[in-house]
Amino acid sequence: MSVDERRRVRRLPREVRERQILDAAVTVFSAHGYHNASMDEVSEVAGVSKPMIYAYLGSKEDLFAACIRRESATLLAAISQGVSLELPPDMQLWHGLRAFFDFVGAQRASWQVLHRQAISQGGPFSDELIAMRRQAISLVDTLLVRTATRRGLDEQSTEALAAALVGAAESLADWWLDHPDVPSKVVASRLMNLVWMGFGDLVDGNTWSPAEHA
Amino acid sequence: MSVDERRRVRRLPREVRERQILDAAVTVFSAHGYHNASMDEVSEVAGVSKPMIYAYLGSKEDLFAACIRRESATLLAAISQGVSLELPPDMQLWHGLRAFFDFVGAQRASWQVLHRQAISQGGPFSDELIAMRRQAISLVDTLLVRTATRRGLDEQSTEALAAALVGAAESLADWWLDHPDVPSKVVASRLMNLVWMGFGDLVDGNTWSPAEHA
Repeated sequence: MSVDERRRVRRLPREVRERQILDAAVTVFSAHGYHNASMDEVSEVAGVSKPMIYAYLGSKEDLFAACIRRESATLLAAISQGVSLELPPDMQLWHGLRAFFDFVGAQRASWQVLHRQAISQGGPFSDELIAMRRQAISLVDTLLVRTATRRGLDEQSTEALAAALVGAAESLADWWLDHPDVPSKVVASRLMNLVWMGFGDLVDGNTWSPAEHA
Repeated sequence: MSVDERRRVRRLPREVRERQILDAAVTVFSAHGYHNASMDEVSEVAGVSKPMIYAYLGSKEDLFAACIRRESATLLAAISQGVSLELPPDMQLWHGLRAFFDFVGAQRASWQVLHRQAISQGGPFSDELIAMRRQAISLVDTLLVRTATRRGLDEQSTEALAAALVGAAESLADWWLDHPDVPSKVVASRLMNLVWMGFGDLVDGNTWSPAEHA
């Protein structure tokens, strides 16, 4: 490497380096799992020296937590951007679900790290995961479900529905990892049909009660 | 303790002892978490000596895994028993949801161990949890969703819907741990309304498509 090249490499801004490291870490963690992933491989894939990785992002544990934080922020941003508040509520939900499943489909490695790996590691990572779920529920509650409040559902009820919806989407995304041939749009459409055809009735004030069906 | 009393205590059948130990372990694990739970306290609460606990159920890790297996088997049995196949599908779903939320409500300690603790511990426990989720999805698929197959939904689609439904119920049960004042029936009814009023339309062949709403 010439002196000029060295200088150019060294001059890369910190954000760019961190992004390279995190991209590499997500790839390596999702391929080998947290325990079997080595910092040597992260360093090799990132093209960044191990001392620089430690200096920028800390230990392997810190690096994994940083991956979860970045990937969950990216996922939530993708959902937010997919949704446009001028749309009617069913189209908001549809766009939100499409954005979610498109993200999971395009970034299976991210989802593996976010979800399966973080759950299987436990400890501090499950705290990160719980924080991410809280944010997701709050986002869904704000974006989609509050629309229904104006139509008569109380606030606590919308939060519960948002929790159920987030759980359904997560679980379906997990199912999808084992059925990768199903297109993103089909998966999104299954959940849309399950919850919207229900939710649509709720919004119109049609509720189900056991008494009428006994 | 007299010789007679000693003999009576010693004569308790193994299943009874194991049940006492597991009951105590669920209480202690859910109160203190896996790491902080001590075998001394399990022994004290169970009224069974530590050597006998090790002899019957193994190490602390084995004991925790045995708790997850027993609690999940109990939960799945409660759901199966709650459902009667002669009922129409909506009443099957309603009884299944009631059984699930009644179990979680009555046995919050079990649910804590099953779900939050197992997730936060990771490792072998997340494998137990994943196995339990698979069984739950398969149960829901068999009991409830296949009904819909006869009305035109394909098999892979019902498995995906079962996964979504299990995820929604789990997530809502988790939300419920933080909102313990809401009655079991109200929580069950929220999920019923979300999914059945949707699912009901699906069963009748009414599906949602973005084209009609664009």
